[in-house]
Amino acid sequence: MKFISFKLKDEVRFGVVDDENSSVWDIISISKDSGLSCPSSLIEGIEEGEQFLINIEKLLKWGKNTENESYLLPFSDITWLAPIPKPSKNIMCVGKNYREHAIEMGSEADIPEHVMVFTKAPTTVIGHNDPIDAHVDITDQLDYEGELAVIIGKKGKKISQQDALDYVFGYTILNDVTARDIQQRHKQFFIGKSLDSSCPMGPWIVHKDTISNPNHLNITTKVNGEIRQNSNTEHFIFPVEEVISVLSQGMTLEPGDIIATGTPAGVGKGFKPPRFLKHGDVIEIEVEGIGKLNNIVK
Amino acid sequence: MKFISFKLKDEVRFGVVDDENSSVWDIISISKDSGLSCPSSLIEGIEEGEQFLINIEKLLKWGKNTENESYLLPFSDITWLAPIPKPSKNIMCVGKNYREHAIEMGSEADIPEHVMVFTKAPTTVIGHNDPIDAHVDITDQLDYEGELAVIIGKKGKKISQQDALDYVFGYTILNDVTARDIQQRHKQFFIGKSLDSSCPMGPWIVHKDTISNPNHLNITTKVNGEIRQNSNTEHFIFPVEEVISVLSQGMTLEPGDIIATGTPAGVGKGFKPPRFLKHGDVIEIEVEGIGKLNNIVK
Repeated sequence: MKFISFKLKDEVRFGVVDDENSSVWDIISISKDSGLSCPSSLIEGIEEGEQFLINIEKLLKWGKNTENESYLLPFSDITWLAPIPKPSKNIMCVGKNYREHAIEMGSEADIPEHVMVFTKAPTTVIGHNDPIDAHVDITDQLDYEGELAVIIGKKGKKISQQDALDYVFGYTILNDVTARDIQQRHKQFFIGKSLDSSCPMGPWIVHKDTISNPNHLNITTKVNGEIRQNSNTEHFIFPVEEVISVLSQGMTLEPGDIIATGTPAGVGKGFKPPRFLKHGDVIEIEVEGIGKLNNIVK
Repeated sequence: MKFISFKLKDEVRFGVVDDENSSVWDIISISKDSGLSCPSSLIEGIEEGEQFLINIEKLLKWGKNTENESYLLPFSDITWLAPIPKPSKNIMCVGKNYREHAIEMGSEADIPEHVMVFTKAPTTVIGHNDPIDAHVDITDQLDYEGELAVIIGKKGKKISQQDALDYVFGYTILNDVTARDIQQRHKQFFIGKSLDSSCPMGPWIVHKDTISNPNHLNITTKVNGEIRQNSNTEHFIFPVEEVISVLSQGMTLEPGDIIATGTPAGVGKGFKPPRFLKHGDVIEIEVEGIGKLNNIVK
């Protein structure tokens, strides 16, 4: 099942993508007309836990049975939002989680021995098709980083690697847009990673039931149609289970937490000479089993 | 004016400290009885901007005029909470913002040329008098860092240093508790800085009108009564105005954002041999013009 957050006539809603990947079941409208309960946002649903999926199944069944076409909104009618438009804490990002990317950012000495995590402010988040601000007045080294992101579904602490995937709600695609010059200048990554609009996310969250192994998914990033990153999450230095386990040893994870799993080789800074983003560039990130996330640099 | 968040019979409330620093005006009760409007939490008040202070003045006047003593709660009757018990994003922390502290953590080479910022998860936040978990199963290098913290009061971007203090709501005290071994192992500071209960904050927010210059305040940290840190914010490498300006060049600051301004020399790791925290240690951080923040390591 794929979950979208979207705007319809300036109202924030959420829904479930239909089988053709072309329209969305308007869960809020179905709930209003059927009297069946549903949360007011996707994040509230994720917080509800397993009951959320049971309720969604009931709502979808009711909606489909009415044969009322107004419940199924074509993608062309909606404004995309990030699945979690305003996260309640910073996005946690694993740095240098693919060997070849660590090397392209420096040398073999940069391959981490332990999980490295920095964060991006919630104000960075934008949705599918939203423009990425080039921030030309403060950086001339804006770079893309295509990533698989994990959405936590259940509160937990000291989670073992064996149990880790039980704490996952689903997966989405994330572009960890980075100002390399700012990142380097300020040592700790936060400032260079937290420019407004530097975290495109979406187009939807795929429920974990659809993804049998998050550590075996093709991932590609194209800029203006040209493949720049082309890898597979099997090359993670630290697989999803290990990242969740390490993070949760001292810190409670909560439903709706977002963990970006790191980017493979092929970022702009890795080219000689570097190929940074510029006005008009179209970025398309595809992750197997999830979909494609598109954004243009404005 | 000093603002507290607290619990009274399991209900979260907020109030204003009386002139004797011994009790708190129960703003929510005054609002209910007077019919005068007030937000339901301190963070909502901060988001309201200048109207919040005007409303608070009216509520206090009404409460004092009734001479009803039940509106004034002795500190002994309340359970302290952090002034913002659940921040809506990570706490932003300036690293190595005092020259002598940078040197004690390494050498002169560690004195930063540019503002360095990392973050702590919102799940770290605890209040005045709350116990700090020693996390003995994952660290044996738990350390204290007494700091002045800035609470942002107004949304802003590309804020000049000259205008920066206009965007401040007030100030509080913060203990940036750190697991040095975890901090070092994971390179980027987030994991070692985000253990549950590692961000004591409070006891209250002092409105900025009371603090004429945040860059000229005595700051001391005592452990079991012994002075460990004793400095003045005049030794900031990057004063509050510069930190706000740098952060906001690419990122929108929002009301309720919390910025910890860095810690002076005298942390446990700086001693030879190091003096890390252990079960039963009492930490008292005092900042001139604000007050004292007390916590015990459990």
